Amino acid sequence: MKKIPLLLMGCGGVGCQLLHHIVSCRPLHAKLGVRLRVVGVCDSKSLVVADDVFTAELDDSLLLEICQAKSSGHSLHTLDSGPCSTFSSTDAIRKVIYIGGLLGRSTGLAVVDCSASPETVGILSKVADFGCCVVLANKKPLTASMEDYDKLVLQLRRLRYESTVGAGLPIMASLSRIISSGDTVYRIIGSLSGTLGYVMSEVEDGKLFSKVVNVAKSLGYTEPDPRDDLGGMDVARKALILARLLGHRINLNSMKIESLYPAHMGPGVMPLEEFLNNGLPQLDKGIQERIEKASSNGNVLRYVCLIDASSRCEVGIQEVPKDSALGRLRGSDNVLEIYSRCYKEQPLVIQGAGAGNDTTAAGVLADILDLQDLFS
Amino acid sequence: MKKIPLLLMGCGGVGCQLLHHIVSCRPLHAKLGVRLRVVGVCDSKSLVVADDVFTAELDDSLLLEICQAKSSGHSLHTLDSGPCSTFSSTDAIRKVIYIGGLLGRSTGLAVVDCSASPETVGILSKVADFGCCVVLANKKPLTASMEDYDKLVLQLRRLRYESTVGAGLPIMASLSRIISSGDTVYRIIGSLSGTLGYVMSEVEDGKLFSKVVNVAKSLGYTEPDPRDDLGGMDVARKALILARLLGHRINLNSMKIESLYPAHMGPGVMPLEEFLNNGLPQLDKGIQERIEKASSNGNVLRYVCLIDASSRCEVGIQEVPKDSALGRLRGSDNVLEIYSRCYKEQPLVIQGAGAGNDTTAAGVLADILDLQDLFS
Repeated sequence: MKKIPLLLMGCGGVGCQLLHHIVSCRPLHAKLGVRLRVVGVCDSKSLVVADDVFTAELDDSLLLEICQAKSSGHSLHTLDSGPCSTFSSTDAIRKVIYIGGLLGRSTGLAVVDCSASPETVGILSKVADFGCCVVLANKKPLTASMEDYDKLVLQLRRLRYESTVGAGLPIMASLSRIISSGDTVYRIIGSLSGTLGYVMSEVEDGKLFSKVVNVAKSLGYTEPDPRDDLGGMDVARKALILARLLGHRINLNSMKIESLYPAHMGPGVMPLEEFLNNGLPQLDKGIQERIEKASSNGNVLRYVCLIDASSRCEVGIQEVPKDSALGRLRGSDNVLEIYSRCYKEQPLVIQGAGAGNDTTAAGVLADILDLQDLFS
Repeated sequence: MKKIPLLLMGCGGVGCQLLHHIVSCRPLHAKLGVRLRVVGVCDSKSLVVADDVFTAELDDSLLLEICQAKSSGHSLHTLDSGPCSTFSSTDAIRKVIYIGGLLGRSTGLAVVDCSASPETVGILSKVADFGCCVVLANKKPLTASMEDYDKLVLQLRRLRYESTVGAGLPIMASLSRIISSGDTVYRIIGSLSGTLGYVMSEVEDGKLFSKVVNVAKSLGYTEPDPRDDLGGMDVARKALILARLLGHRINLNSMKIESLYPAHMGPGVMPLEEFLNNGLPQLDKGIQERIEKASSNGNVLRYVCLIDASSRCEVGIQEVPKDSALGRLRGSDNVLEIYSRCYKEQPLVIQGAGAGNDTTAAGVLADILDLQDLFS
């Protein structure tokens, strides 16, 4: 039986769902000849860790207790962790790095980042140096400086980050296959925000932009402040991750990122209520005109990421053919079209649910299992 | 630099394209830290092999010469192979197994089957026993008896077979990820024959079945005898490979396989010319009636493989919703819809070119690179 020791950073929605999946997949993974040993779990403030990470692990009942506590809003240090230790703040970070050193150099360790924090990148590059594998649902470490990125991808086979783009959709896995087979990617275009995909397909049907955004918010499709989606920054991070995989050496701040609201309606300037009631309706006419213009060209509008073989990497509204995979997109699915030597006239298309804790955690779990040949 | 010794069986269209890709990807693979050492190449009659497989390899000029010879219709034993040896018939098979034993137990060896032969399965299960990795474009070894199949998949991580279904499309890779993450697959439905995809979308537009098949033949979309496509056996093999991956223990001869021509028009009964001129037109009315019936239900007809979580695994014409990925399919693209816990209402869709030597060979090469963690 192959053993993969695992340390999880971040146990919010995705992290807890991952722990649930790990526990429920025990019989399946045994059949595959693999056992995941969770040696530690941390949130932003604390770390619960097995006392002897070489032999012991957090048992399944403790893992489920951790999920229970977190979903009730409690922190990890409130738990009675039995034979395991709990560390707080800087001690926790130091301990994670210490364990990375211990196991990275011996049995190996998969450090899994399901946080949304920009601050894990320091820990990750240290444990990667020790030979640990790194699995990311967190986009921030891959979208920080090129220097941080280069450190993380130095041992590319020990890094997996499928769930950073399109949740569990096999986008990174497919692109990696294309790249390693020498198939040249000419162009990637995709709708990688379920929220913006929903909004763009609804306004295409003639509904008012302001109404659609309000409905999306009430359905829970948007962040609490919809401007977090409408600003395009989340899509930009995904685009940057794809572009860097293709070899582009660019940063977030040099990208062209179209925001669907003007600066004077931004979160720091206009209160949320005013934006929803008075700001948004001012945007309806502009969107409507763009839709009509696209329609007269036989196209529809989508909020897309667009990356090509030159250094182009941008996100924003584009006209796309009505009968393309992107043009036919309805609802909140993600869709990616990849044009390459092998997929020249008709693209390789990957489409499906690109969000949700279950799907994202499943992507993380598949990444972990995909690392199994690096463990003994 | 990681070294992957490689022995290629079958150097027709796909095998030769693979050798070309290997040669042209040398700089790329060097950047990835991998070197592919081709120690032997065989066709159905002969084997060209390096004299010392531990240290020597067929150099790139010889690999390209092999491709040249094969595309001119010459056999391998006509080549001046320089410091390499050539073996014929049973000696060749014995030598392949011998090399499998030598390298499988020491450095490792990837045995790549790009033949279309049912007879490689014996060699493959022997070299797999020796610890060799096996990469298949050949569907036959996976669609023979369950006993042969079980032997091949015993060491599942050492086996790759992406190109057996949908050429280079990331279908097997994606399904493997779904399975290892514990996401339950409820249903797979797909159009996995470019030829039948083209035929079904053309007849949907009101063209006569017999005319469409004749045009497809003249465009080179079909096999020389179109009954090889219309019989559904190639799609059935792909369906069986998918079904067995999901855990179904079934055989080709127990599957429901719909042929688009009746038995009395079969290759053994009716000459090809007569089939094209007199047989096919007799089928037009029946197809036309089915299309009209589907259309009255708001559906279209597709020739699909259909696999579900029970033991259902069949291929044939099915009505599918007009506005599904399958229903919208035009031309010769392949498309697969996967329904699972994570992709419940809207399926995970993978679509793109599912045939062609370049694309198929790219899939094989990606499989080989994906094995790199098993080599040192």
